[in-house]
Amino acid sequence: MTESTRSADTTSTDDIRSASPLRHVQSVDFEGPISLSLGGELSRVSCAFETWGRLNQDASNAVLVCHAISGDSHAARHDESDDPGWWEKLIGPGKAIDTDRLFVVCPNVLGGCRGTTGPSDIDPASDPPRPYGADFPRITIADMVDVQHMLAGHLGIKRWHAVVGGSLGGHQAMTWVTRYPKSAQTCVIIASSPRLTSQALGFDVIARNAIQTDPYFAGGQYYDQNHRPDTGLAIARMLGHITYLSSEAMEDKFDPDRHDPRQIASSFEQRFSVGSYLAHQGEKFTTRFDANSYVTLSMAMDLFDLGATRLQLMETFNDSDCDFLLVSFSSDWLFTPRQSRDIVAALTALNKRVTYAEITSTAGHDSFLVDRDIEQYAGIVEARLGKIETRQSDLSPVEELILSLIPSGASVLDLGCGDGNLLAALRGRGHDDLVGVEVAQANILKAAGRGLNVIDYDLNTGLPAFIDAQFDFVVLSATLQAVSNVAELFDEMLRVGKRVIVSFPNFAYRKLREDYVVRGRSPRAPGEFNYRWYDTPNRRFPSIADVLDLCREKQIEVQQEVYFDSETSAEISPEDDPNLNADTAILVISQPGSPTNP
Amino acid sequence: MTESTRSADTTSTDDIRSASPLRHVQSVDFEGPISLSLGGELSRVSCAFETWGRLNQDASNAVLVCHAISGDSHAARHDESDDPGWWEKLIGPGKAIDTDRLFVVCPNVLGGCRGTTGPSDIDPASDPPRPYGADFPRITIADMVDVQHMLAGHLGIKRWHAVVGGSLGGHQAMTWVTRYPKSAQTCVIIASSPRLTSQALGFDVIARNAIQTDPYFAGGQYYDQNHRPDTGLAIARMLGHITYLSSEAMEDKFDPDRHDPRQIASSFEQRFSVGSYLAHQGEKFTTRFDANSYVTLSMAMDLFDLGATRLQLMETFNDSDCDFLLVSFSSDWLFTPRQSRDIVAALTALNKRVTYAEITSTAGHDSFLVDRDIEQYAGIVEARLGKIETRQSDLSPVEELILSLIPSGASVLDLGCGDGNLLAALRGRGHDDLVGVEVAQANILKAAGRGLNVIDYDLNTGLPAFIDAQFDFVVLSATLQAVSNVAELFDEMLRVGKRVIVSFPNFAYRKLREDYVVRGRSPRAPGEFNYRWYDTPNRRFPSIADVLDLCREKQIEVQQEVYFDSETSAEISPEDDPNLNADTAILVISQPGSPTNP
Repeated sequence: MTESTRSADTTSTDDIRSASPLRHVQSVDFEGPISLSLGGELSRVSCAFETWGRLNQDASNAVLVCHAISGDSHAARHDESDDPGWWEKLIGPGKAIDTDRLFVVCPNVLGGCRGTTGPSDIDPASDPPRPYGADFPRITIADMVDVQHMLAGHLGIKRWHAVVGGSLGGHQAMTWVTRYPKSAQTCVIIASSPRLTSQALGFDVIARNAIQTDPYFAGGQYYDQNHRPDTGLAIARMLGHITYLSSEAMEDKFDPDRHDPRQIASSFEQRFSVGSYLAHQGEKFTTRFDANSYVTLSMAMDLFDLGATRLQLMETFNDSDCDFLLVSFSSDWLFTPRQSRDIVAALTALNKRVTYAEITSTAGHDSFLVDRDIEQYAGIVEARLGKIETRQSDLSPVEELILSLIPSGASVLDLGCGDGNLLAALRGRGHDDLVGVEVAQANILKAAGRGLNVIDYDLNTGLPAFIDAQFDFVVLSATLQAVSNVAELFDEMLRVGKRVIVSFPNFAYRKLREDYVVRGRSPRAPGEFNYRWYDTPNRRFPSIADVLDLCREKQIEVQQEVYFDSETSAEISPEDDPNLNADTAILVISQPGSPTNP
Repeated sequence: MTESTRSADTTSTDDIRSASPLRHVQSVDFEGPISLSLGGELSRVSCAFETWGRLNQDASNAVLVCHAISGDSHAARHDESDDPGWWEKLIGPGKAIDTDRLFVVCPNVLGGCRGTTGPSDIDPASDPPRPYGADFPRITIADMVDVQHMLAGHLGIKRWHAVVGGSLGGHQAMTWVTRYPKSAQTCVIIASSPRLTSQALGFDVIARNAIQTDPYFAGGQYYDQNHRPDTGLAIARMLGHITYLSSEAMEDKFDPDRHDPRQIASSFEQRFSVGSYLAHQGEKFTTRFDANSYVTLSMAMDLFDLGATRLQLMETFNDSDCDFLLVSFSSDWLFTPRQSRDIVAALTALNKRVTYAEITSTAGHDSFLVDRDIEQYAGIVEARLGKIETRQSDLSPVEELILSLIPSGASVLDLGCGDGNLLAALRGRGHDDLVGVEVAQANILKAAGRGLNVIDYDLNTGLPAFIDAQFDFVVLSATLQAVSNVAELFDEMLRVGKRVIVSFPNFAYRKLREDYVVRGRSPRAPGEFNYRWYDTPNRRFPSIADVLDLCREKQIEVQQEVYFDSETSAEISPEDDPNLNADTAILVISQPGSPTNP
C-alpha cells in the first residue's frame, strides 16, 4: 500500500462537495487493493480530513472526531473567517475538546460524498471511466474505520487520546475500540446505539426505497444523466428529519403556525408549516448530498450490529482497553437512552471504566448537535478527555466512618453517590476501581466532572448492570430512606458486592420517639433529613431494629455495626441500646457464609 | 335531494373494491348538489354501508361505527360463512357492541375507494365520462359525517344510541357530536385526538409527497393509464405501518430474525426482515386501495382540528349532549394518550359525563384493532352502551360515614375512587353528578363497568382537568397517605370542590405510638394499611394533628371533624384527644370564608 497527500480543493471536481468551504480540507490517497469486510475490495482510497491544533512530540494528544450520516470533516471553524462547524460549541480553543491542548482530526467517511472515496468517484476499473454508482461495494462501519486507521498511520498516530462520535459517529468510535482494542485511551459515544432499533431500521429501508425507486435513480448510474434521483433523496431526507426531532420539538416548532406555511418554491406539498419545512430541508439536501452515498451510508449503519444481548455486547467489548463515556438524550427516540444503557450494562459487567449520563432534553436525536444540550454534556466530555476538577472532598463524619471501614485497594460501588464526595476521597487514598451510581443529573455531571466513573441509573430498577461479586464493597450511604424497593435492593447489593455498607438515619432515635409520642406528629428524621411530613423525599422510616430485623429475615450476616449520635459525635456501643440512643447507623453486611475478614 | 337504494355488488365495477366480499354491502344514492365544508360541491353521492342486527321500533338502538383510514364497512362478519371484520372481537351477537340488542351501521367514508363516492368514481360533470381523480374536491371529516347524516335519515334514525370510532373513526365520532350536538346518546372515541401532532402531520405530508411525485401519479388522472402510482402508494403505506406499531412491538416482531427476511417477490429492498414485511404490506395495499383516496383521506385527517387549547376544545364540545367514553393506549405514539387527555380535560371542565381509560399495551396505535387489547377495553364500551354491572356496594364504616356527610343531590368528585364503591352508593341514593378519578387500570375498568364516570388520572399531577368550584364535594378517602404532593393536592381539591372530605388513617393512634416507642420499629399503619416498613405503598405518615396543622398553616377552614376507633367502631369526640384515641379521621374542609352550610 502506498500513499500520497494532496489538497482536496484542487482535486475535487464534484460539485456536491463544494457546499462548504474546502480550504482547510486535506486529503491523502491510499493505494490498494484495500479489502472490505464484506468481501469486496477497493483498488485505492482517498481520505479527506481536517485537523485543528498541533500534534505533540509523542503523538499522545490526538483526538479523532467521527461525523454522522450527513456530516462532514468540518466539525469546527479553523479561524474567525471560517464557517462554523457542526460541533462548533464542543471543539475549539479552550472548549471541551480543546484545540489549544489537543490535536483534533475529523475525516470524511468512506462511502460519503464529501471528499473521501465514495460512489460518486470514478471507478478506477471502469473503461471508459465512470463513477462507481451502484457498483460501489457494500461497506460497513468497520471499513470506514479501517480507512481512518490508515489515516492515523499516515499522521503518525499510534494511539488516539480519544475517539469521539455522535450517532453514526458513535458507531465508528465503538468500532475503533472493538476492532482495534488498544487504539484509544478514551472512547466517547454520544447519542448512539449498539445496533439500530427495528423501527429505525424500518425508516431507513423506506428512505432507500424512495431513492432506489425514483425513476431517475437509473440503477445508480445517474451521474451522466440530465436528472438525479432528487425526489427520492429529498423524501429520504424529510423522513430522516422527523426521526431526528422529538414530537415535542416539532410541536414547539410547527404548531404555532401550523396552517401558515412559509412560501417556498418546491414541487412538494406545502399546505402546512411542517410540510413547507420538510420540502425545504429535503430539496436543500439534494444540492449537497449524493443519493448513492446516502444509500451506502445508511446501509452501513443498518448493518452495524455489536450484539443484541448483553452477553454478545460483552464479547464485543471484552478486549477494549479504554475509558468510556456515553451520553444519551431523554427525548431521543431514534437512538434511545435504553440502547446506551445496554452498552453501559455490558461495559460495567466487564469492569470497564465507564461514565454514562442521560441528558434531559427536548430536541430529540438532534440534541447532540444543539448548543443548549452541548452545554450540558460538554463538561463531562472535557473531564473524560483529561481536564478534571480536583476539588478536595469535604467529608461528613458518617462518610469518614464509612471510609475507615473500607480496606485499602478495595473496589467500591457507591449507590446514590451524589457529586462523588466519597469516591473522590477513596481515589485520594489510592483506590482505583471505583464506580458511582446516581440519578440526579446535576450530581452526575459534577461527579463525572471530577473524573469519576459515574453511571446514570435508578436504584429502584435493581442493579442489573452489574455482575455477581463484582465489587469488594457496595456502599448505600444516606439513601435507604428514599428507596421504594428496599428488599430487592438488599438482595441486589449482596449479589453485586462481597460486602455491603449501609448507613441510614435511625427513625427510632430517642428524640424522634419523644417527638412522636409527646407531640403526636408524623415521625421526623434526624439532621439533614428533617423535612415536613407532606413534602419529604423520604418514603421509608426504618429504625436500626427494623433493618436488623430485615437482615435476620433474609439471613443476612451483619459483620460490623457502628452507631453514633451525630449531635454529640459520640459513638454508641451495640450494648447501649443504639436503637434508642443513636441517630445514625452504619452496618457492614454480607451474604451468609461470607468470610468475616476478606 | 332525492335518494335511491341499490346493492353495491351489482353496481361496483372498480376492481379495487372487490378485495372483500361485498354481498352484505348496501348502498344508497343521494342526489345533490351536496355542499362541502371547504366550498366545493358534489352533484351526487353514493354511500355504501353494512348493517348488523335489527332496528327497533322507536329507532333507539342504532349504533354508528366509523372506520379508520384504510378500513371499510366490513367491521364484523354477518354470518358464519362470512369473512371476519376489522372489529370482529368487539361487534357481534353477545359481544360488547351486541348485535342481538343493537342495530349496528358501518358506512364507508366519503372520499374512500370502497363503495362510497370518492376520487376513483366517475365525475358526473365530465364529458366524456372519466373519474374525478385529482378533481375530486377537497373534503373534511365534516363532509364525511354529513353523508353519514343523510344515511341516518335514510335509515330512519333520528338519534344514534352511540357513535363509535377508532383513529380517523374517532375523528368522525367527535365531529358527529360537535356538528350535530343532539345526534347521539353516547360518543365512543378510541385511540384518537383533537388534531394530529405535528409529527404525525409530517409523516402524512411525506406519504402524500411519495404518492404525488410518483411519475405514474400523472396529476391524479392515472385511471386510464397502464400504470398506477403503486410505488408511491406502497411507500406511503410502509410509513403508515411504522407509525401504527410501537418500537417495542417492532422489536418483538422483527428483531429475532432481523437478518433473515421472508423471501417475497417485490421490487423493494428486502435485506432485513422488517424490509421484507414493509415491502409486502406496501405492495398488498396497492391491490386494494386507490392513491387518490389515500391523499384525500389523509388530507381530511390532517385538516381535522377541534382546537389546540383547552379553551378551544371547550368551545367545540360545549353544545354536545351525550355521554363520552375515551380510550387510549400507552404505547400509541401516533395518537397519544396525552391527546386523549386533552379532550378529557375539556369535557370534564364542561361537566360532561365522561369516562377515560388509558390501556397499558405494547401494540402502539394498532392496539385498538388488536384482540388482546380489545379484550381490555370491550367491557367499558359495553357498559357505556348501556349494559352495566349493578352490583351492590359493600361499604366500609368510613365510607358510610362519608356518605352521611354528603347532602342529597350534591355533586361529588371522588379522588382515588377505586372500583367505584362510594360513587355507586351515591348513585343509589339519587346523586347524579358524580365523577371518579383513579390510576389503577383494573379499578378504572371495574368502576366504568358499573356505568360510572371515571377518569384515568394520576393525582400527583394535580387536578388541572377540573375547573374552580366544579363540585359540591371532593372526596379523598384513604388515599392521602399514598400521595407525594400533599400540599398542592390540598390546594387543588379546595379549588375544585366547594367542600372537601378527607379521610385518613391516624399514624399517631395510641397503639401505633406504643408500638413505635416500645418496640422501636418504623411506624406502622392501622388496619388495612399495615404493610411492612420496606414495602408499603404509603409514603406519608400523617397524624390527625399533622393534618390539622397543615390546615391551620394554609388557613383552611375545618368545618366538621369525625374521629373514630375502627376496632371498637366507637366515635371519638374532638374533646377526647382523637390524635391519641382515634385510628381514623374524616375532616370536612373548605377554603376560608366558605359558608358553613351549603
